[in-house]
Order: sequence, then C-alpha cells, then structure tokens
Amino acid sequence: MTATVHPLHAKPEPSLEPLMQIVGEDMNGVNAVILERMQSKVALIPELAGHLIAGGGKRMRPMLTLACARLLGYPGTRHHKLAAAVEFIHTATLLHDDVVDGSGMRRGKRTANLIWGNPASVLVGDFLFSRAFELMVEDGSLKVLKILSSASSIIAEGEVEQLTAQRRIETDEDQYLSIIGAKTAALFAAACRVAPVVAEADEEVELALESYGRNLGIAFQLADDVIDYDSDAEVMGKGVGDDFRDGKMTLPLILAYARAGEDDRAFWRSAVSGERVSDDDLAKAISLMRSTEALADTIECARHYGRRAIDALANFPAGKAKSALAEAVEFAIARAY
Amino acid sequence: MTATVHPLHAKPEPSLEPLMQIVGEDMNGVNAVILERMQSKVALIPELAGHLIAGGGKRMRPMLTLACARLLGYPGTRHHKLAAAVEFIHTATLLHDDVVDGSGMRRGKRTANLIWGNPASVLVGDFLFSRAFELMVEDGSLKVLKILSSASSIIAEGEVEQLTAQRRIETDEDQYLSIIGAKTAALFAAACRVAPVVAEADEEVELALESYGRNLGIAFQLADDVIDYDSDAEVMGKGVGDDFRDGKMTLPLILAYARAGEDDRAFWRSAVSGERVSDDDLAKAISLMRSTEALADTIECARHYGRRAIDALANFPAGKAKSALAEAVEFAIARAY
Repeated sequence: MTATVHPLHAKPEPSLEPLMQIVGEDMNGVNAVILERMQSKVALIPELAGHLIAGGGKRMRPMLTLACARLLGYPGTRHHKLAAAVEFIHTATLLHDDVVDGSGMRRGKRTANLIWGNPASVLVGDFLFSRAFELMVEDGSLKVLKILSSASSIIAEGEVEQLTAQRRIETDEDQYLSIIGAKTAALFAAACRVAPVVAEADEEVELALESYGRNLGIAFQLADDVIDYDSDAEVMGKGVGDDFRDGKMTLPLILAYARAGEDDRAFWRSAVSGERVSDDDLAKAISLMRSTEALADTIECARHYGRRAIDALANFPAGKAKSALAEAVEFAIARAY
Repeated sequence: MTATVHPLHAKPEPSLEPLMQIVGEDMNGVNAVILERMQSKVALIPELAGHLIAGGGKRMRPMLTLACARLLGYPGTRHHKLAAAVEFIHTATLLHDDVVDGSGMRRGKRTANLIWGNPASVLVGDFLFSRAFELMVEDGSLKVLKILSSASSIIAEGEVEQLTAQRRIETDEDQYLSIIGAKTAALFAAACRVAPVVAEADEEVELALESYGRNLGIAFQLADDVIDYDSDAEVMGKGVGDDFRDGKMTLPLILAYARAGEDDRAFWRSAVSGERVSDDDLAKAISLMRSTEALADTIECARHYGRRAIDALANFPAGKAKSALAEAVEFAIARAY
C-alpha cells in the first residue's frame, strides 16, 4: 500500500499518543517521584540510573498503571508512587539483563554496564529494586505489595529459565511462552492489576485488567523478538541480531528450526551453539525465518495475544481510556512490521 | 599466654554455641522455611542457592532475630519467616558481591559465580531478594517491611559507595565507617529490630536492639577486614589478601597508609592502584600493618563497637538470651585474633 493509492483511507500508524494524552498529567507526578527517589548521597547511583531512566524509555508500564486507573475513574494520586515503583523494578531488570547478556546498546545509547562496568550496574539495579519496595511500603497496601513482590519473583524465575534455555536448540514453544510470560508479561500484568486495587474495584475488575496486561505483555515480547531479526538498529535502539548471536531461543528461531530441512537444521544447531555469528550468518537466519514464515507467524501469534488483551477490556465502558489501552496493544504489535 | 602457664584460668574461646543453644528449635523452623522457599520449578535456582545456603554459613543474622525475640520472651513463630527473609537478603547480597569482586572462594568452597557464571549468580540473587519480600508480605507487618526494605536500600547504597571508594587511596576512616555501616551493619540492625516489632515491644526496646545489631555489625565487619590480612585461607574460608588485591580501602590499610613514611606511602599507592598483587607484596603489606599497629588498632576499634553493642543490652534482664547475645559480640571480634 502506498500513500498515493489510498490517501484518504490510510489508517494512521497505531501509537502511544492517546495513552500519553490521557495519562499526561499523572505522568508528571510519576516522573517527579522517579526523579526524587533515584537520588542518593552516593553520586554514582543517580548518575547511572539517570542514564537509563532519562534515556528515552517509553515508560509503558507506569503509563498502563495510570491508564487503568483512569479507566476506572480513580480520582486520587496514590498510584503515582506505585507506577514509579513499577518503573524502578523494570529499570533494575534492564540493568541486570544487560549485564547478563553483555549488551552494549539499549534505547539507542551505550549501556550502563559498558560505561560504568558490570559491578556498578548490578549494584545500582539492586538499589532501584530496593527503592521500589520502599515506595510500595510507603503506599501501605499489602495487596499491592503481594502483587508486585510476587511479580518480581516470577520475573527473576523467568530470567533464570531463559538463561537455562539459552543455546539449547530443544527449547520449544511452550517453554518459550513460559519464559516470556514470566520475564515480561508478569510485570505488565502487575502494573495493570495495581490500578483496580488502588481504586478499590472488584476482584473481577482486577482479573480483567491483569489479563489485559498479561496478554499485552506477551504480545509485546513476541513483537520484540521479531524486531530483533527484522529491523534496523535505529528502530530497535539496540543491536539487531543480539538474540541470534546470544543463542536465545525465541519463537522466530523455534518455528524456523521446526520447519527446516536437515541441512538448515544443521545451520540452526551450529548457530544456537555459537558457531555462526557473522553478518552473513544473521542474513541467512533472517532469510530462513522469512521463507518458513516464522516471522510472519510470530507476528500472528502476537496478534492473537493482542486480541485477547483487547477482549479483556470488553466489559469496561467505551471512552478515551479504553480506546487508548486498545491502541497501546496495536502499537506494541505494529512495532514488528 | 600459653596453655601450660595458665591451664586452669584459660578463658574458653567465645563461640556461637550459647546462641545456637537458645535458638536451636526456632532455627529448625527457619531452616524449614529457607529450604521450602528457595525451591522453584527452574532447577538451577535451588541448585545454585543451595550451594551457598547449605554451604556452611553461620546464619548469624537469622539467629540474632531469634535470640532477640527470645530475650523479649516472645512465644510465637511469626519471626521464622522473617528470619528466613533476612537470610535470603544476606544470601542475595553475597551472590552479587562475589560477582562484583570476581571472587573465587567463599565459605571454603568455590563461589557460585565460578561454578555457574556471573549471569546465573546475578539472577538467582534477584530471585532470593524477591522471595525475601514475598516472605515479609506474607507476614503482613508494614513496620517490618519498612525496616527491611529500608535496610535493603541502604545495603545497596553502601555497596555502590564501596565500589566508588575502591582503588581510591584518599578514602578515609569516616567514609569507611559509612560504607560498613551501610553494607554490613544495616542488615544486622534490621535483623535485631524485627524481633521487638513482632513481639510488640516498646519503641525504646526496638531502638536498643537496633543499636545492639548495628554496633555488632560494625564490629563484625572490622574483624572481617582484619582477618583478610591476618589469617589463613582455612580459617577465612575465602582467599586471604582479596581486599589487598582488589584495592579495597578497609581500615587496616587506611591506618597503615596514614602512619606510613613517604616510601611506604608510595608502596600503598601503587598497591591500591593495582600494581602490587604478588604474595611478596601482600607479605609486605601485612608487615607494614603490624609495624604501624594498624591491625591491632582495627581490632581495638572493633572492641569499641563491641562494647557499645553490649551496652545497648544494659536494660534487658540477665539470662541465657542476654549472655548469648553478649558472647556473640565477643565471638565476632575474637575471630580476628
């Protein structure tokens, strides 16, 4: 499709703009908490944390907390601290992820571990994680604490599971879904579930928004895992092909391997074991993923979870908040094509 | 003094035996929680965590929680989960410390990072840390959550401060005390303060036991920092001279440097900057620390904080719990000579 053929019917690219519009004012409150609470008398802490936090993240998770609260008509500001806590947990996991993967690029910038070293990234991650819990404790809801401490355990479990699946060609779609359900979707789910708790909504509402967040999180990670093979560094903000070179068993690779003939299977095995790290190898991997429709089917899988996320919103009243949450799902998936 | 001169008056070595006796039964409860809650469907988690947790640690911090509760006559078992949470936080920091320092030996065994690699140690540390918060949330006391989440932030802050002081010869005694007060004493203090909260004792009691824990923690770390220069690997359970080779600015080095002539100052500067890592260099460092009485004065400093810890117990009734807590202080210091 080109602009000259369908100039009037062109559907605009889905974006986070509607989400940002409905949460804009609240987000100023969250940003103030983030800025204030990442401070420390130890100068390296705000310096390192600020590099990542100020570094162009979308802040999708705290925006989801705010938008879900708006969907429920919650009038207060209690959730500002909690949304900041969610972002701190996310930032801590990014710092540790980059150490674990030895990553050099994130959000289009050099990673903290590259600039300040692994030790500083590990310890500042620990600080932000502790700070997140302090924020939750200040809020004082044991229910919120339960949701977010449980999510944190599940995230760490998912990260360890991902580590044990790395370079293991036997990893299958079920295990992949278990990993991304834990490492990514658990925090999206918790970020959304916190809002109805603060708004004192029914358990049914909690479960619906948790389901929205979980399915959105899975769709988001599926799209991310496509982008790692089908994008350029500018869009991605991090190195393309990182998953390939790290031997990460993401769905595009799992599907391509399952659909490969014997020769191509040998290629995938050697690639996953770390013997194929050149640009030509990556180009061949992408070509195989296209010819087996592994990339298209991963996007289709993302769409499936995206539809489930939108379905979870069915019983909420139509309005700006609901539309914005639905478009956030479209946005998460559209990044991949 | 030798055994043949004073055979009948020889004071027995202080030990943790009395502490273990009064908390023995409770400790079984704590160990059961630890074992149960370090489990995960991801096999690497209990494998790696178990290596360290089962690996001969003294479990001093959870024992302190239990002994303080006993001192207050607390009859319940709520503190078992909290003592386990304290040990999980401690274990998480050890895992991350060993990654940060690149350590190879801990408690007389190879470190987890050496066996399973840095990524696994970072992520399993994150898991144990999250699990600790889950245990606290299950207990349900916001006051306990506040004490332990604040301690966790302070620990991380202290670890980052230690990192920034590393290889900086200008680091002075004040900064050193700030670092160990945060990285070590904060958790001892919190472990002790949790007991009066659970036992619903007065704030005055909380502050007394916190002071006991904090001063014991400082004495403990001072003794540890002497042991790193004045012990053998068998007693130490980890490599002797690690602090020296890592350029860690601990009190023995700070004092020896302050008291050195110009030649020896040059030696210390090159050592701290990482240019002197041989066994001969370590031997020279130890010899300088002895001739300047830096080691003896660090032990004297530990005794000072030890006396403050014991003073903090003044208003508690005499009995087995109080004696055991006092002997724990003697034990912490006596390890250094």
